[in-house]
Amino acid sequence: MPIAISAVWTAHPGKEDVVRDALVKFVPATRAEPGCQAYVVHQDPEQPTVFKIFEVYDDEDAIKAHRNYPHFTKYAVGQVAPALVDRSHEFTTVLDF
Amino acid sequence: MPIAISAVWTAHPGKEDVVRDALVKFVPATRAEPGCQAYVVHQDPEQPTVFKIFEVYDDEDAIKAHRNYPHFTKYAVGQVAPALVDRSHEFTTVLDF
Repeated sequence: MPIAISAVWTAHPGKEDVVRDALVKFVPATRAEPGCQAYVVHQDPEQPTVFKIFEVYDDEDAIKAHRNYPHFTKYAVGQVAPALVDRSHEFTTVLDF
Repeated sequence: MPIAISAVWTAHPGKEDVVRDALVKFVPATRAEPGCQAYVVHQDPEQPTVFKIFEVYDDEDAIKAHRNYPHFTKYAVGQVAPALVDRSHEFTTVLDF
């Protein structure tokens, strides 16, 4: 069964645009991955430093592949991570309905 | 911008199958709604009574329409709600990347 990841990225105040700029390139590249079924960035407008991301991948291998792509290294690791004060990930199983 | 709803439905112990049975019919009908962009049910396998649902709708009107469809009344209100001990919803704005 596919795997969902519910991530929360919290940017340092003032670093929101660094995260947004990375997402502009990172999101389309991730959605183009063969094992990625969904990649949705959403936000409470009253919390502009908090980026919520709902991701769905085919399986564990698709998640490993995601983390080995150049765009992951360049944008998630290289650009977003230094701009974050906190991040969390919850893994769940997608139920097939 | 589209609206995401992150819902958590917690079933009474033993009522999980009542919720699953309703979802079998409710999920495809919801995905067929013109204003529904995503409806993903996911779960921590170690918490079988807790159903997490990530939904995306075009806008407020699409959410209102969702709640006025016969399948919402029949399954969400009529079958799922009585089987739940708790439920929560968080509304966020989907960012366009």
